[in-house]
Amino acid sequence: MATKSVHADDVAMKGGGYYSLTTRGAKDVIDTAIPLVLKAIDGMAPASDAGVFTMSDMGCADGGTSIDMVRAVLEKVRALALSRPLQIVYTDQTFNDYNALFRIIHGATEIESYLKAVEGVFVQASATSFYLPILPPATLNLGFSATAMHWLSAKPGNISNHVHAVGAKSAELAAFAKQGRRDWETILLHRAAELVSGGRLVLVNFCRDEQGRYLGHTGGISMFDTFNSIWQSFVADGTISEDEYLDMTLPQYYRSVEEFTKPLEDPANEVYKAGLRLEEVETRIVQCPFAAEFRQHADPAKFARSYIPTLRSWTESTFFGALSGERALDERREIIDRYYSTYETMVRDDPEGHGMDYVHAYMSVVKA
Amino acid sequence: MATKSVHADDVAMKGGGYYSLTTRGAKDVIDTAIPLVLKAIDGMAPASDAGVFTMSDMGCADGGTSIDMVRAVLEKVRALALSRPLQIVYTDQTFNDYNALFRIIHGATEIESYLKAVEGVFVQASATSFYLPILPPATLNLGFSATAMHWLSAKPGNISNHVHAVGAKSAELAAFAKQGRRDWETILLHRAAELVSGGRLVLVNFCRDEQGRYLGHTGGISMFDTFNSIWQSFVADGTISEDEYLDMTLPQYYRSVEEFTKPLEDPANEVYKAGLRLEEVETRIVQCPFAAEFRQHADPAKFARSYIPTLRSWTESTFFGALSGERALDERREIIDRYYSTYETMVRDDPEGHGMDYVHAYMSVVKA
Repeated sequence: MATKSVHADDVAMKGGGYYSLTTRGAKDVIDTAIPLVLKAIDGMAPASDAGVFTMSDMGCADGGTSIDMVRAVLEKVRALALSRPLQIVYTDQTFNDYNALFRIIHGATEIESYLKAVEGVFVQASATSFYLPILPPATLNLGFSATAMHWLSAKPGNISNHVHAVGAKSAELAAFAKQGRRDWETILLHRAAELVSGGRLVLVNFCRDEQGRYLGHTGGISMFDTFNSIWQSFVADGTISEDEYLDMTLPQYYRSVEEFTKPLEDPANEVYKAGLRLEEVETRIVQCPFAAEFRQHADPAKFARSYIPTLRSWTESTFFGALSGERALDERREIIDRYYSTYETMVRDDPEGHGMDYVHAYMSVVKA
Repeated sequence: MATKSVHADDVAMKGGGYYSLTTRGAKDVIDTAIPLVLKAIDGMAPASDAGVFTMSDMGCADGGTSIDMVRAVLEKVRALALSRPLQIVYTDQTFNDYNALFRIIHGATEIESYLKAVEGVFVQASATSFYLPILPPATLNLGFSATAMHWLSAKPGNISNHVHAVGAKSAELAAFAKQGRRDWETILLHRAAELVSGGRLVLVNFCRDEQGRYLGHTGGISMFDTFNSIWQSFVADGTISEDEYLDMTLPQYYRSVEEFTKPLEDPANEVYKAGLRLEEVETRIVQCPFAAEFRQHADPAKFARSYIPTLRSWTESTFFGALSGERALDERREIIDRYYSTYETMVRDDPEGHGMDYVHAYMSVVKA
C-alpha cells in the first residue's frame, strides 16, 4: 500500500473546458483515479458480453469534475466492445443541481462533453441516495464515486471538544466510528446487489492515511483545528453559546484504510458474504490547488480570498444549523459571515501552512 | 373510433396534491389515458418475465401531471409481478426543469408521490429528445407520452397567412404535413428499437379529429385564428413588419388520426417493418379548465386573467423570436406584453366562446 503525492499541475485539463480552482481540486482527485478505473475495466473483459454496459457516478454533483474520467471509461469500453450499448447513470441527492448536470453532459456549456465523441451512449440521472438501492439488482458493471461517502447518513451525536470526528475522543469517537462502519457496510451491500458478477467498484474517498494525515491536515496548519479554534473563540467572546458550539458537529467520518477494507476481507462480514472483494487500495495526496497557486502568485490576500469560499461551501449549512433558532435570521447570517471573515483574515495575515490538501483512499472492489 | 368528451370535473385529483389550473388541464388529459395504459399492461402479462419492467414518460416536464398515471402503472405491475424491479425513466429536453421533477417524485413538495407507496421502484431521468434513442435497444416495456409530439424537430418553413399549420394552405401545408410525417416516423422507429417484443406505447397527442376539431377550435372562437388576427392587426397598425408577421410560425403540426396510424398499418412503411402495430386509437376532448371555471364564477376579468398566461407559456418564445433583432430588447418585450394584453382585453370584453379545449388522439401501439 503506497502513498503517492500528486501535484495539481501534473493533471492536464484534458476536457478543454473551464473549471474554477474549487472544481479543479475535485477534478484532479478524479483524474488521478483514471488508471485504476481503466485497470478495473480490463479485469471485466467487456467484450465478453453483448448486453448494456452500465456505469454509475455516485455523488456526481454537476458531472463536470468526472467528465474526463467518464470519457476515458466510455472510450475504453467502446474500443473493446464495438456495439455494446453504454449507459452512464449520474446519481446524487434529491437537491443536487441536475439541470446543470444535463446541460454539461449534453454539451450546452463551455465544458467539452464526451457525448458526441462516443457512439451509443445513454445518459441518465438518479436522485436516489447511495444509502438506498439506486439501480435494479445485477445491472451495474462499474460503480464509481469520489469524495462523497464521508457524509454519514445521520449524525451519531455531538462532539464536545471539536467540530469534526477527526478531533473526537473516547465514546464520542467510538459513536462516529460505529456510524461510519454501519454506513460503509450499507453502501457496499446496496452496491453488491446492483453489481453483476465480475462487476467493479472504484471508490475514491477521504481517509485518514497510514501517517495520520487527512483533508487539510498534512503537515501544515490543521484546517479542522482552525475551524474549531475560531468557533471556540466565538464562545469565549460571547458571540455564541456552549450549546451552539456543541451543535456544530459535521456529520462526516474519515475512515482509515483498515476501516475501508475490513468488510471486504472478513469472511464473517455481510459485505464479504454478498461477494464483494478488495482488489487494491492505496492512499494518495492531491495538493490544495489554492495553496499551490499561492506559491506562484505569493499574494496572501488573493490566497485568502480564493481559499475561504471553498471551505465555506461545504461547512456553512452545518455552522448555520448549529445557531439557535431563537436568534433572528439576520443575526445568524451576521455571525456566519463574521466566522468566515475571521478565518480569511487569519490566512491573509499569516498564510504560511494554510491549505486543504486532499487525502484519499483509492480502492478497487470486485463482485465475485 | 369514438369521440368521447371528458369534463374536467369528471377527473378526480387522486394524488391529493395542489395543481394550478394550467397544470390541471394537462393532468386531466393524462388521467383520462389511465384506463388505456392499464389495458396495455394487461396485454403484456407482466408476471411472465422476472426482469426489470421499464416505463418511460417522454416529455414529462416536472412529472407532476403524470404522477397518478405512473402510480397506477406501478401499482398494477407490482400487483401482478410481486418482485419485478420497476423502473421509470422520465425524459424531456435538455433545458427541462429536472430539479423540480426529482423534488416532486422524491416527495419534497406538497404533491403526493408514489415512491413510498410502491416497493422496488427505481426512478431515473434522461435529458435526451424523443427524436433520438433514449434507452438501449430492447429494454423498454411501456413508453408513454402526452401532449409533446406535436413539436416538430425543425420548422419546415414559414406560413404566409397564419401562425400555425392548422391555418396553412397548399404547398405550405404540404411542407408541414411532410415534416410531421417524417418526425412521427422518426419518433416511432426509435421507440421500436427500444421496446421489448410485446412492449407497448401509449401515446396521447394533440390531433385534428374526425370533425376537424383541434386545440382551441371546438365550436367556439378559434384560438389560433385569434392569435393570428391580433398578430395581423399589429402589422396593420405598423407595430410589426411583414417579415415579423411571417416569422411567427409555430414549429408544430397536429396530425390527423390517419396520419398517426398510417405507419402502423402500411406493410411497406419502415415503422411497420420494425414491428410496431396499432392496437387502438380514439380521439377525445378534454374541456378547457379556464372556460369551465368561468362557467362557475361568471367573472370575465378573472377568466381573462387566468386564461391568457397559459396561452403565453407555450407561444411567447416563438412570438418573441419572430421580432427583429434590430429592435431593442425592451421594445421587443413591450410588443409581446401588448400582444397578450390585447388578447386578454378581447376575452375580458367578450368572453363568450373563448377557451382552449384539448383535442387529443389516444393511441395504443404494440411491438410485435
